[in-house]
Amino acid sequence: MWNINNMKNFTSVHDAEDIPKLVEEAIRLKADPLQSRIGHNKTLGLIFFNPSLRTRLSAQKAGYNLGMNVIVMNVDKDGWKIEFEDGAVMNGDSQEHIRDAVKVISSYVDVLGVRTFPELQSREDDYSEKVLRQFMEYSEVPVISLESATLHPLQSLADLVTIEEYLIKKPKVVLSWAPHPKALPQAVPNSFLQWIKKTDAHVVLTCPKGYELADEFMNGVEVIHDQYEAFEKADFIYAKNWSGYHDYGKILPVEEDWTITKDKMDVTRQGKFMHCLPIRRNVVATDEVIDHSIVYQQAKNRECSAQAVLKNILESHG
Amino acid sequence: MWNINNMKNFTSVHDAEDIPKLVEEAIRLKADPLQSRIGHNKTLGLIFFNPSLRTRLSAQKAGYNLGMNVIVMNVDKDGWKIEFEDGAVMNGDSQEHIRDAVKVISSYVDVLGVRTFPELQSREDDYSEKVLRQFMEYSEVPVISLESATLHPLQSLADLVTIEEYLIKKPKVVLSWAPHPKALPQAVPNSFLQWIKKTDAHVVLTCPKGYELADEFMNGVEVIHDQYEAFEKADFIYAKNWSGYHDYGKILPVEEDWTITKDKMDVTRQGKFMHCLPIRRNVVATDEVIDHSIVYQQAKNRECSAQAVLKNILESHG
Amino acid sequence: MWNINNMKNFTSVHDAEDIPKLVEEAIRLKADPLQSRIGHNKTLGLIFFNPSLRTRLSAQKAGYNLGMNVIVMNVDKDGWKIEFEDGAVMNGDSQEHIRDAVKVISSYVDVLGVRTFPELQSREDDYSEKVLRQFMEYSEVPVISLESATLHPLQSLADLVTIEEYLIKKPKVVLSWAPHPKALPQAVPNSFLQWIKKTDAHVVLTCPKGYELADEFMNGVEVIHDQYEAFEKADFIYAKNWSGYHDYGKILPVEEDWTITKDKMDVTRQGKFMHCLPIRRNVVATDEVIDHSIVYQQAKNRECSAQAVLKNILESHG
Repeated sequence: MWNINNMKNFTSVHDAEDIPKLVEEAIRLKADPLQSRIGHNKTLGLIFFNPSLRTRLSAQKAGYNLGMNVIVMNVDKDGWKIEFEDGAVMNGDSQEHIRDAVKVISSYVDVLGVRTFPELQSREDDYSEKVLRQFMEYSEVPVISLESATLHPLQSLADLVTIEEYLIKKPKVVLSWAPHPKALPQAVPNSFLQWIKKTDAHVVLTCPKGYELADEFMNGVEVIHDQYEAFEKADFIYAKNWSGYHDYGKILPVEEDWTITKDKMDVTRQGKFMHCLPIRRNVVATDEVIDHSIVYQQAKNRECSAQAVLKNILESHG
Repeated sequence: MWNINNMKNFTSVHDAEDIPKLVEEAIRLKADPLQSRIGHNKTLGLIFFNPSLRTRLSAQKAGYNLGMNVIVMNVDKDGWKIEFEDGAVMNGDSQEHIRDAVKVISSYVDVLGVRTFPELQSREDDYSEKVLRQFMEYSEVPVISLESATLHPLQSLADLVTIEEYLIKKPKVVLSWAPHPKALPQAVPNSFLQWIKKTDAHVVLTCPKGYELADEFMNGVEVIHDQYEAFEKADFIYAKNWSGYHDYGKILPVEEDWTITKDKMDVTRQGKFMHCLPIRRNVVATDEVIDHSIVYQQAKNRECSAQAVLKNILESHG
Repeated sequence: MWNINNMKNFTSVHDAEDIPKLVEEAIRLKADPLQSRIGHNKTLGLIFFNPSLRTRLSAQKAGYNLGMNVIVMNVDKDGWKIEFEDGAVMNGDSQEHIRDAVKVISSYVDVLGVRTFPELQSREDDYSEKVLRQFMEYSEVPVISLESATLHPLQSLADLVTIEEYLIKKPKVVLSWAPHPKALPQAVPNSFLQWIKKTDAHVVLTCPKGYELADEFMNGVEVIHDQYEAFEKADFIYAKNWSGYHDYGKILPVEEDWTITKDKMDVTRQGKFMHCLPIRRNVVATDEVIDHSIVYQQAKNRECSAQAVLKNILESHG
């Protein structure tokens, strides 16, 4: 079969040459998950530096659908403490250098998925994607981001698949900031903007002043600080909390109530509520909104999206 | 093949329509574990809220025997902190509502096993099986209890298989309370009584006064508070500690020594000693008793029992 | 096919009847990992009492290569706290006796791998291999050491495979002690000496005075306390830290700098630097030495070595 996306790694939107075809392939795999067994006798390694539910399960399932063996490894729990600094004199706590760990792990598997996270202390450190970059540099095999410090491409692909399933021409898609008790990464909103801008959607971002994301993601996106105004006639509301980008990693004071309620959804064009999960109920959005949402469809689409990416990588570098 | 037990879920004795046939099927699968590959390309998800050894390994093995893929997930360790209250405003520690977690997890698997546990604080909370019921309510796929707050049906089925292997007509089966340093759930004794009462056994319960179980399990069971008297001419002694049901979750003062010893076993009819494991040696029973017991046969029978249940569920809802 | 090594267990060099043939088989499996599917429908159980990366991944991969199902279990984390003393009255912390745990676990699998560790408190306890011996005594199936208190045979086999790949006749092989901030086991150096002495290599041990290993491993090995002198014209430098054997488990004062540097490597005969990993960079050896080493080849050879051992065991007792 003709290989639609000549993928080596999958860490951002830039690794997908033809996004519509990738979305289409995911939808085809969802309809018939066992159609390709290209992963037979191949091994998928999944490395987690922090907890995960959807990503862990959907990636495993995607691998099984393709016939792969799957090895899951929780770093710092099943393994050793990792050193990330080049040239470090390792006479402290860390037991293995990322360089050695990645070279070794990647020698046992055919595709390597890794989930890393931002410290939210230094914007420069996080946005340089230090950990993910080292994985890409040292890995002997293709690397898939299972969420990195600043992006979450498998989530975004699943989001595009979900939106595509509604077959709405030029939909209005609103990314809305929402409250949360803790400081969260910007990975999901960054990545969603990166991907949704590649479609024919009219993209609006609504957030309290000060919560604007980095320019590279905001370019071409309409910003409306009034949440009600932003929601008007929207086809999709994508809710997510994130901490400050400009005032990095901070929770800023917000006066209005940004929780997504039925009242707010009522000004949309029967808008579908989306969220990547896990969601803090009655904080990010009310029970009523979540229980009439498409969040489970989104979550389910993580499986076919991961599978489409794995299939493309195996076709290109199997 | 004719489906002997039209199972949807498996959470108590009431889910098995024809227990003798289920026991018979387990014995047949034990003799030839690879006879059915009905699980090929199906996925078994196993969710643990607390540690497990036998259940974890035997359920995985049962799945493999049927050709299934198996995904194991330790909640609160591999994943997020779970919220169990409906309507909760989730601005505290818990990160994902059970409703969302179950809907998502169950969308990736074909059968979902879950192990929950009682808090032993509120009898009402525990006996309402709050967690398990939410799994059953929200799961898109059949749910298997890998032990719940008040029942452990996979263990009880393995116990019946073990007793059946001795081919004793109308055996005398004694469930005996035994000492333990910690307050334990009533799940195993409750469940054993529920299942053993469905057989032709003469069932006796012996325990210190105050350790009686709930009426629904005790009905039709002879109670003898003198352990020696209870053991007379018994064919099987099933030992287990549990905390108080009436004085809920409490360790009550007990004067006599309830540890199962060879002296006590000597008044039985060459009675077989049974325990679900793990067992505190020389507390619940002496080394001598355990080393001449059938506890390993019981443990091994967890595999074929889980396999019979899985097979029935896949035949009914595969 | 003719079974080259009639293995029951694999816990030391003494379990391998014909080492050259075992090494040869590992090299053959490396060239064509899927040549034998003897493990089809067999289950490999891997039990870890402490963290592991290479061993965990390479053993899983080796099992998959042979078509096995693999079950991984972290004791004391996924399961119960284990009691190791015979006759213990278990009314304290420990929840399950090793005897019961091993009998049960081994009833669900076809081959059982176990990783144990020394306490480094009592030489007698560690060198009696108390935990591993109980696994071997109680297991119903063959036992593979994934590193024990005093030996690491799968590592040593991989080391021999790596050296063999260079096809050097009578190579000079130097085992060099190196610095480390923590007290480490003697398992890797003990085991390496046990295995390398079975080859045609000229074996030299270099270490600070006081760091000599047990006589059974040192017999027949040339000892040179001057590191530069020892390295002269060496073909392979095997670096490893270990704590004192005679002054048991202690870190002894060392005056010279034993870190392996390029200067030291320069006196060898283009010697290859080896280490079992994980390695403390710029403590055990400098970045420069490690980055021109064969440590990743060694790590990769863990896979074919484990596979050769598993294959032999399955051929003998499958």
